[in-house]
Amino acid sequence: MMNDTGRPRVGVVMGSRSDFETMQGALEVLQQLEVAYEVRVLSAHRTPHLLPSYAARAERLNLSCIIAGAGGAAHLPGMLAAFTRVPVLGVPVQSRALSGQDSLLSIVQMPAGIPVATFAIGAAGAKNAALFAAAMLATTDEAVRDRLDAYRDAQTRSVLDDPYFDGHAQGGAE
Amino acid sequence: MMNDTGRPRVGVVMGSRSDFETMQGALEVLQQLEVAYEVRVLSAHRTPHLLPSYAARAERLNLSCIIAGAGGAAHLPGMLAAFTRVPVLGVPVQSRALSGQDSLLSIVQMPAGIPVATFAIGAAGAKNAALFAAAMLATTDEAVRDRLDAYRDAQTRSVLDDPYFDGHAQGGAE
Amino acid sequence: MMNDTGRPRVGVVMGSRSDFETMQGALEVLQQLEVAYEVRVLSAHRTPHLLPSYAARAERLNLSCIIAGAGGAAHLPGMLAAFTRVPVLGVPVQSRALSGQDSLLSIVQMPAGIPVATFAIGAAGAKNAALFAAAMLATTDEAVRDRLDAYRDAQTRSVLDDPYFDGHAQGGAE
Amino acid sequence: MMNDTGRPRVGVVMGSRSDFETMQGALEVLQQLEVAYEVRVLSAHRTPHLLPSYAARAERLNLSCIIAGAGGAAHLPGMLAAFTRVPVLGVPVQSRALSGQDSLLSIVQMPAGIPVATFAIGAAGAKNAALFAAAMLATTDEAVRDRLDAYRDAQTRSVLDDPYFDGHAQGGAE
Amino acid sequence: MMNDTGRPRVGVVMGSRSDFETMQGALEVLQQLEVAYEVRVLSAHRTPHLLPSYAARAERLNLSCIIAGAGGAAHLPGMLAAFTRVPVLGVPVQSRALSGQDSLLSIVQMPAGIPVATFAIGAAGAKNAALFAAAMLATTDEAVRDRLDAYRDAQTRSVLDDPYFDGHAQGGAE
Amino acid sequence: MMNDTGRPRVGVVMGSRSDFETMQGALEVLQQLEVAYEVRVLSAHRTPHLLPSYAARAERLNLSCIIAGAGGAAHLPGMLAAFTRVPVLGVPVQSRALSGQDSLLSIVQMPAGIPVATFAIGAAGAKNAALFAAAMLATTDEAVRDRLDAYRDAQTRSVLDDPYFDGHAQGGAE
Amino acid sequence: MMNDTGRPRVGVVMGSRSDFETMQGALEVLQQLEVAYEVRVLSAHRTPHLLPSYAARAERLNLSCIIAGAGGAAHLPGMLAAFTRVPVLGVPVQSRALSGQDSLLSIVQMPAGIPVATFAIGAAGAKNAALFAAAMLATTDEAVRDRLDAYRDAQTRSVLDDPYFDGHAQGGAE
Amino acid sequence: MMNDTGRPRVGVVMGSRSDFETMQGALEVLQQLEVAYEVRVLSAHRTPHLLPSYAARAERLNLSCIIAGAGGAAHLPGMLAAFTRVPVLGVPVQSRALSGQDSLLSIVQMPAGIPVATFAIGAAGAKNAALFAAAMLATTDEAVRDRLDAYRDAQTRSVLDDPYFDGHAQGGAE
Repeated sequence: MMNDTGRPRVGVVMGSRSDFETMQGALEVLQQLEVAYEVRVLSAHRTPHLLPSYAARAERLNLSCIIAGAGGAAHLPGMLAAFTRVPVLGVPVQSRALSGQDSLLSIVQMPAGIPVATFAIGAAGAKNAALFAAAMLATTDEAVRDRLDAYRDAQTRSVLDDPYFDGHAQGGAE
Repeated sequence: MMNDTGRPRVGVVMGSRSDFETMQGALEVLQQLEVAYEVRVLSAHRTPHLLPSYAARAERLNLSCIIAGAGGAAHLPGMLAAFTRVPVLGVPVQSRALSGQDSLLSIVQMPAGIPVATFAIGAAGAKNAALFAAAMLATTDEAVRDRLDAYRDAQTRSVLDDPYFDGHAQGGAE
Repeated sequence: MMNDTGRPRVGVVMGSRSDFETMQGALEVLQQLEVAYEVRVLSAHRTPHLLPSYAARAERLNLSCIIAGAGGAAHLPGMLAAFTRVPVLGVPVQSRALSGQDSLLSIVQMPAGIPVATFAIGAAGAKNAALFAAAMLATTDEAVRDRLDAYRDAQTRSVLDDPYFDGHAQGGAE
Repeated sequence: MMNDTGRPRVGVVMGSRSDFETMQGALEVLQQLEVAYEVRVLSAHRTPHLLPSYAARAERLNLSCIIAGAGGAAHLPGMLAAFTRVPVLGVPVQSRALSGQDSLLSIVQMPAGIPVATFAIGAAGAKNAALFAAAMLATTDEAVRDRLDAYRDAQTRSVLDDPYFDGHAQGGAE
Repeated sequence: MMNDTGRPRVGVVMGSRSDFETMQGALEVLQQLEVAYEVRVLSAHRTPHLLPSYAARAERLNLSCIIAGAGGAAHLPGMLAAFTRVPVLGVPVQSRALSGQDSLLSIVQMPAGIPVATFAIGAAGAKNAALFAAAMLATTDEAVRDRLDAYRDAQTRSVLDDPYFDGHAQGGAE
Repeated sequence: MMNDTGRPRVGVVMGSRSDFETMQGALEVLQQLEVAYEVRVLSAHRTPHLLPSYAARAERLNLSCIIAGAGGAAHLPGMLAAFTRVPVLGVPVQSRALSGQDSLLSIVQMPAGIPVATFAIGAAGAKNAALFAAAMLATTDEAVRDRLDAYRDAQTRSVLDDPYFDGHAQGGAE
Repeated sequence: MMNDTGRPRVGVVMGSRSDFETMQGALEVLQQLEVAYEVRVLSAHRTPHLLPSYAARAERLNLSCIIAGAGGAAHLPGMLAAFTRVPVLGVPVQSRALSGQDSLLSIVQMPAGIPVATFAIGAAGAKNAALFAAAMLATTDEAVRDRLDAYRDAQTRSVLDDPYFDGHAQGGAE
Repeated sequence: MMNDTGRPRVGVVMGSRSDFETMQGALEVLQQLEVAYEVRVLSAHRTPHLLPSYAARAERLNLSCIIAGAGGAAHLPGMLAAFTRVPVLGVPVQSRALSGQDSLLSIVQMPAGIPVATFAIGAAGAKNAALFAAAMLATTDEAVRDRLDAYRDAQTRSVLDDPYFDGHAQGGAE
């Protein structure tokens, strides 16, 4: 298993350091599920020449996927997907004026031919991209599958254990 | 009358504990109108297997309706409506990035065949769902009808008693 | 049962004759489920003086609910709800320039205190409002309940009977 | 001139006391331009029976116009316009979830036949509705016209007197 | 009365000949209500130098108001309002890509200080602007008031005379 | 290789037969890339009881992913993702009134915990979901990788071979 | 003057042949104003490796600007702007589902650091981008300036020569 | 070179002093790149008579471009573009209720014939407009070109020097 060597299976990239707060949720999930990853700040607009080299690196490392977060006119996920067949998961970062509506449309509305798998705006999307990355690995890696199943079970239990779950909370009658 | 036994007539469910603040307005209205209810945290996404059992419970208890609050890609109201003929009232919880526009469309735009009665985004919608639940009961229950009429009369009087109501507030002339 | 006398249990009103095409789906569902109804063109803007009298009529007939369809700055559902405690189901008619987004917001975003149960924009919403009206009746009327259950069963079967349902449609391999 | 007697020439109404902060700008402009007005809280939804009587009052007082502010599914301006030919100026109050987009569409998208003159969302709209009311009066009342012209001149001067106006602010060269 | 001399009381301007189809509804209403008007194609963008001269003309003719229709980044109504105190009624013409959402916001969202009374997108807005212009005149001109009242009465009767109005249309029972 | 046995590696499901036109692009891509798939009509709303059984089937068949297309308040992708860890790719079908904006938000805005990989509205999204499914397989299946690379190369060549590509198309000079 | 040699001063690129209909308006304006240009189909997503080489070509040819049209998640203008300091003018092509709202936001909402000058959605934007390109050249090239002035004068005259311009069109009086 | 004399090459105008905070980013970039500029508060609505004179000034000074920031129904950029062929760069200021969506559409959706080069909503747009102004000058002014290249290089380096850039940040494995 790759984890022995620490070779990353998932690349996490973001357009700017200011996206870190959003993307942290992805890193936490990957750590919790013990999926090795690497993190990079990589700007489609300020460092465009590095896109093909990172795409090549992703193929060389045989990354399972790249998680790319970006905001506004967000081109990072789509351009990485243009440079490599490695699956790209896009996370629309919540932008200031338009609350991430621009980020979402810039990522999800890719033309036919170059897909980007898109997740929700902001921190929920980052976390879900990481869970999806684990689910992709889980189709061929039993250890990840077991950890993902445990994660989802715990998530379900957090609802079942809620004091409100069993319906004792009642009211309205005299 | 059901209220004697405290058997709930309305089920209030929400997708997450974080929806509680929004849904509290519904509970307060039901209490004020003495409509017995039960409350559950029930997540379409984290506890999907419980949807059919809660739907069955709603039919078994012969609930008058289910009030379901959820945010984002809100599937709870629609999925409960899919599992039972008991009327479902959906409350779109205000989401972070999109202010509940996603919640609203995910709930109200149900395809033909499975209706969800949808109310305003946020606390106003929660309160109104409860008033609607009472209005449904009021068509066959005189006691609820009297309490609902009293509630609406008080609401009207709150406008009539406003110091600005009688138009003494004037200005603009020398 | 009311149907013997033909006394309407549901009032269907619309702001303009041009809304008829949209609302027809509601009438067909009510007919199919044998729920007696009456239909009116009633304009919040062109015949405002008739709103309180129709509201009074709805209470006098003890209508189970009023289904009100309107488009654009759609005030008919909300104003009827203001004049009567009889539950009002609002159907946003698809408008020309804004595709019913104006109709939807004008109906669903009612302030706390006066609820309107809102359904999807256009024909799907009209059909669903009628199904919801039947579901409301079904909580106390077994005959309607049986017909509604049969309706929903047929709807489910229409999917199960689809030639594509059983997964014989496959492909992609040599 | 009407101002001698203090008889109001403009009616300012709002759906709720919470709209007062927004509408205050209208009152200030009317005071500054010495246009007599009266203020009312009048809710389309909680006091619908009062709409025709206020409309009748507006005609009896021969009001030049009614300025009506409301938020969310805002029906007050449109319903007053339905009950009277007295010109109605609508001010969309900024709503919580949708920032007044619902208020704007509920007011401006009136169907053909019953007009509501609509202004910007929030305080700017309230102020502009008052300026428009004054401009309407100014077409037949010279005193108002003079005061309005003075108001607009002062407004223009506030730009001309800006230290940045004369372009001394320069930079960029060594 | 002005109509004897044919001196226009309302100016109707539009940004482009292609707006004519939309604005025709305004002309028809003015003709029906016998309100004298003049029509101009006047482009804020292609003939900006003519804006102040048309504004001056409007003041010289003592026009009761200017109805200005424009689409897209619609600047005509707001710029006329900037150049004159004569009330400006704005009609957002339905644009191709954005269905008039751009036209609406460009007209209605005027900053505090320079009001434009805005009406619905497209033909309904044009018709309503003309009705509003008549309602403005009706506050001081009895003849227009009578014609406007007759117009509104006929409009109300068109609903009352609808075969569906009297509720004979019923169904749903056996 | 799985294709020998025809066992599907990808499940393609859609909420309604009317979604078929949109989803056909996905099937064509899978066929072209020789990725075995099965197709089902499966409605979250009309056949909710089948969701857990299809989810179980997906795990039993060890499907690489499920491509789920749905429109309006689209709950199919999210509910399948709730019932199984098998990766779900969501395709928002273009809806009538809101052009798929409702479909998109209902699918992409999933709360943290249950991811759905979302693609563009309509046919482009369907095609891209299939390409993404192939890219997922390509990380561990060389044959698919080769076919996907060939597909992308052909796609690139279609641009390079365009007569406009080489810039002979010039103009503007005398 | 460059036109003698036919060396292009403006590069016109588009993401797909299907954008040609939109971009044709740009070519026509450039021809009319005798600004030499070259045209390329250049896809950010299908031919990403060519972006840096076209950017280099633009610098080598010392192009005055690049006009780039693209639709959906439109990355072409922004990525060219990332690869070169040559000014990039972006034209959002009207997309199918979202009418170009996605194209507009993907182009205009560039993060600080890499500008793209954006124009209106669709054909109007293409034409205006070409006029802007000419206006840029006109600041240093008198011949272009004269042709641009003539173009704008003709545009103004087309309004002045309109039979509706002189206000003979009147009506409304008896 | 113009900078010797301090004659401005770029005019920066804004509709209101409250836009200063947004536009400051433009001034800082121009200073950093040593592009001489002048700043003016110039309101399309409150000082419309000054628009043609500022446009004339821009032509007299042979300004390379005008950067115009405005919010809401933002008419300043479009009206300046109507009065002069000098290229106008529009910056949509973030408005209170609609977050600059109104500003953006009022600026970018100019009709064919009068272009405004539009940039992102808010501070990013202001900064980018200044960078674009510099890029325009850079096509004919080597000194500006060198400073712009240095600016862009520093920008690129700020990413490369990021501690996260080199991928040492890894995690997820045991």
